[in-house]
Amino acid sequence: MDISQQHLNLEQWYDVIERALEDPGAGPILNVVDDGGVYDAIFLGGGAGGRFGAAYLRAMGGRPLIIDAWPFLGGSCPHQACVPHHLFSDVAAELDLWRWFSGQLFFPEWDPSRASILEMIRLFLRGRSSAHAFMNWQTKEQLEVEYVLNARGRLVDASTVEVAGRTFTARNLVLGLGASPTYPDVPGIGLAGVFDFATLVEELDYEPRRAVIVGGGKTALEYGSFFHATGCPTTIVSRSPLMRTPSLHHVDEDLRRYVVDGMRKRGMEILEGAEPVAIEGNGKVERVVVRLADGSTAAIETDFVFLGTGERPNSAMAREALGVAVGPRDEVLVDKSMRTSVPSVYAIGDLIGGPMEMFKARKCGITASKNIMGEPAEFDFSEFPDFLHTTYEVTWVGLTEQEARERFSDVIIIQMPPYVENLDTEHLPLPCAERTMLYAFAKPELSGFQKLVIDAASRRVVGAHHVGYGAKDAFQYLDHLIHRPDGLTIDELGGMNELFLNPEHFVQLSRLRAGRSALVSL
Amino acid sequence: MDISQQHLNLEQWYDVIERALEDPGAGPILNVVDDGGVYDAIFLGGGAGGRFGAAYLRAMGGRPLIIDAWPFLGGSCPHQACVPHHLFSDVAAELDLWRWFSGQLFFPEWDPSRASILEMIRLFLRGRSSAHAFMNWQTKEQLEVEYVLNARGRLVDASTVEVAGRTFTARNLVLGLGASPTYPDVPGIGLAGVFDFATLVEELDYEPRRAVIVGGGKTALEYGSFFHATGCPTTIVSRSPLMRTPSLHHVDEDLRRYVVDGMRKRGMEILEGAEPVAIEGNGKVERVVVRLADGSTAAIETDFVFLGTGERPNSAMAREALGVAVGPRDEVLVDKSMRTSVPSVYAIGDLIGGPMEMFKARKCGITASKNIMGEPAEFDFSEFPDFLHTTYEVTWVGLTEQEARERFSDVIIIQMPPYVENLDTEHLPLPCAERTMLYAFAKPELSGFQKLVIDAASRRVVGAHHVGYGAKDAFQYLDHLIHRPDGLTIDELGGMNELFLNPEHFVQLSRLRAGRSALVSL
Repeated sequence: MDISQQHLNLEQWYDVIERALEDPGAGPILNVVDDGGVYDAIFLGGGAGGRFGAAYLRAMGGRPLIIDAWPFLGGSCPHQACVPHHLFSDVAAELDLWRWFSGQLFFPEWDPSRASILEMIRLFLRGRSSAHAFMNWQTKEQLEVEYVLNARGRLVDASTVEVAGRTFTARNLVLGLGASPTYPDVPGIGLAGVFDFATLVEELDYEPRRAVIVGGGKTALEYGSFFHATGCPTTIVSRSPLMRTPSLHHVDEDLRRYVVDGMRKRGMEILEGAEPVAIEGNGKVERVVVRLADGSTAAIETDFVFLGTGERPNSAMAREALGVAVGPRDEVLVDKSMRTSVPSVYAIGDLIGGPMEMFKARKCGITASKNIMGEPAEFDFSEFPDFLHTTYEVTWVGLTEQEARERFSDVIIIQMPPYVENLDTEHLPLPCAERTMLYAFAKPELSGFQKLVIDAASRRVVGAHHVGYGAKDAFQYLDHLIHRPDGLTIDELGGMNELFLNPEHFVQLSRLRAGRSALVSL
Repeated sequence: MDISQQHLNLEQWYDVIERALEDPGAGPILNVVDDGGVYDAIFLGGGAGGRFGAAYLRAMGGRPLIIDAWPFLGGSCPHQACVPHHLFSDVAAELDLWRWFSGQLFFPEWDPSRASILEMIRLFLRGRSSAHAFMNWQTKEQLEVEYVLNARGRLVDASTVEVAGRTFTARNLVLGLGASPTYPDVPGIGLAGVFDFATLVEELDYEPRRAVIVGGGKTALEYGSFFHATGCPTTIVSRSPLMRTPSLHHVDEDLRRYVVDGMRKRGMEILEGAEPVAIEGNGKVERVVVRLADGSTAAIETDFVFLGTGERPNSAMAREALGVAVGPRDEVLVDKSMRTSVPSVYAIGDLIGGPMEMFKARKCGITASKNIMGEPAEFDFSEFPDFLHTTYEVTWVGLTEQEARERFSDVIIIQMPPYVENLDTEHLPLPCAERTMLYAFAKPELSGFQKLVIDAASRRVVGAHHVGYGAKDAFQYLDHLIHRPDGLTIDELGGMNELFLNPEHFVQLSRLRAGRSALVSL
């Protein structure tokens, strides 16, 4: 269907998208102005990087075209990844509160039969195309970007893409083809009952009674915490210690311990140094055989296996059609301008490897667009703020305490609970703020942990770490401030205007020490 | 008791404080080093300003003494004000979620008999001395500040305070005596059943069945929303439109409308342009007679009246003993260095008038200390970030859209839901992030509102406004960035690394427009 001359509203877009998702033969959605003009870039892939890159290129006065196989823009995030993950994690936090306060205060007795993984997935599925509708609407009406959706583009050469029976050419090509979950090479991995984050929302059709998670990074912790919070007993099987996977950097050990201990406190079984050796069952998962840290094996009876074992870039077509150079994990190799080995071909987002994060995808797209439009730009994503969910929100930026101690001779720590030994903090209602007040006053050991790492000589904040709620948004700005050339000093931080009770207490805690010329921990 | 040579742990401090609160004759708590040395400053009042001021003065190498009538440091905030308010507001957010989802998803049927105002107060009362214990411990052991607690200091002259039968002298005096709730001059205001934020936690001994709130500012909205969320039907009676009281600045009209409409959606009765003319009852409140906006009167049957009608500085002693100049609302007059009209006497915090906020109190204390220690300092608190709670967290900083339009010729707005007319956003699951995901997917109109105000010519962010959850912490940094001399441009903001889904979507929304040389709204 050609909607280039129409101005669909959100409800109409919703219907278009839902129909396309239900009917494989629905055909392409064309929003193309056929005026014979030349495209500055074709964005093959309209996910986070492609959509933001195209919008930016258009904002700079250029002409982009997005091509995507899905009937909506925005990619996997709103369809299968970060959006459902946030819904599930938010639900996990609610259920966790209820479980801890079962039958206390205003909470009814915890009833595990009430919380359903399947119902939460269905809630998400009913709503997701509303977000899609908005992005299609916005990209056309507000951002004035042309696109072809619901049709798989085929790379012809470095300036040509065939899609929906038509051929489009452009001065440049920006590849944003994403990544796909990888599965470990384990017998039985193809059995029914084995899921990843994508197939979970697309295919789960029963209520899991017992969950086994494979992996030790973000996805494993996030989904595992959700399943367990619904009342589905969960085991995590991880080769590395949790949060010590290669994809996570700058994880402070105290933060890690608080997070993992917190999962154990909630009854999750965590098997570190372990790996699955077989998944067994008669057509459907019945058990996972695990090799444990001590070399012995154990069988875990389960009807549900969830793989959080990473993703690999979808680079095959680009490699085969254009000959772009790829790295050892299938990632398309790019320089800091997002240029591939093939002239006028850029690659962005998950396709170029980790970190497979939203900020990186979007800013890759913009970096490519700036270069295409003649504004030289580089994007260094070697340092960035990060987060994950358990039943908590966990955020960090900059150096861990240990990393800082290796780099600087005098490191001070400001944290809550305080950085002193043997203080009886078991009733201390700190830290506390939004979403931790009930914990602080009734179960203080659950109310969170926060730490600031400071180089005493320069007085600069070099790391910040938080477990609790309500600090994630702030860490975007902390990242910006810490990584400015002149950094963020304890004096500047202590001079800010806190909104008390602030989820992280960094401003006021800094201020209590900032008066000293020789800094000490707190 | 003299604890100067002891190192009480938190449990021992808890017991000392609880005993003192229960027994009016418990006597002073002395943490004083009698070495004949001279104090640089006596802080009369150990609340937020006194405690932080003294800690900072000590950190600079000076010698402070704090004197406070309460047996703990930290003042009214952890005892009666911001801490219980946060507990109650956090509970209100939880109850609100439950009420909207009553009998849906994993939520049981809403049962108003379960949620009890009195029980939440008792939960707070059981825990508050643990926070007090920590502050007493920290101030002595980590911050090395001397103090006399649980004894009312008497001002003798500008360098002398008598307390606990002893006389202390210092080079300077820092007055941090706080403020007390004011009551409107209405017949019946002294009846049992009329409360303010302080007497609520100290004296409430029954479960209110119906609440009438007087006031239209933060306290009225915060406590009123909590009472109503527990199932206690609540009416707010306010002379001004809600959030248009003199104590609140920079409240954007769209933000205000979302907040107040949200309260109405939840069934709160809001009477603007109205005021109580009598509170009636036989020894105890039975009804409030209200003059309505149209001049008519109405009687509201109620067993509970809550006054959110502001506070007046406790300046009488300072005026009478020292002759410090005071202003029309009893506030001690100070310059930007916190100096009063009397040499070597400083005043800080709520005692000098509004804004009666934590950041101001603490930074006043530090400003006084810097000046006392010979480091000239001024503190301008004319601009600051602000927040309040309803069942939402509401935050704002900088200019409203209207203020910006009066000041700049070309203002653009970036907001979610988007700044377009007649778009059918009723199913739009945006904004969304932590704590709004269920709303976004099931009741999208409840998931919040956010707006960024930008001066197109300078490209600078001049205001930010948010209703939802999880952005309060970030607004501390937004305030810092916006008010730096070089400000925060849409380009800088759009260049940051978002932690997606971020509670406020400002980074990515800015980025969608930042590519344009001529900015337009989104």
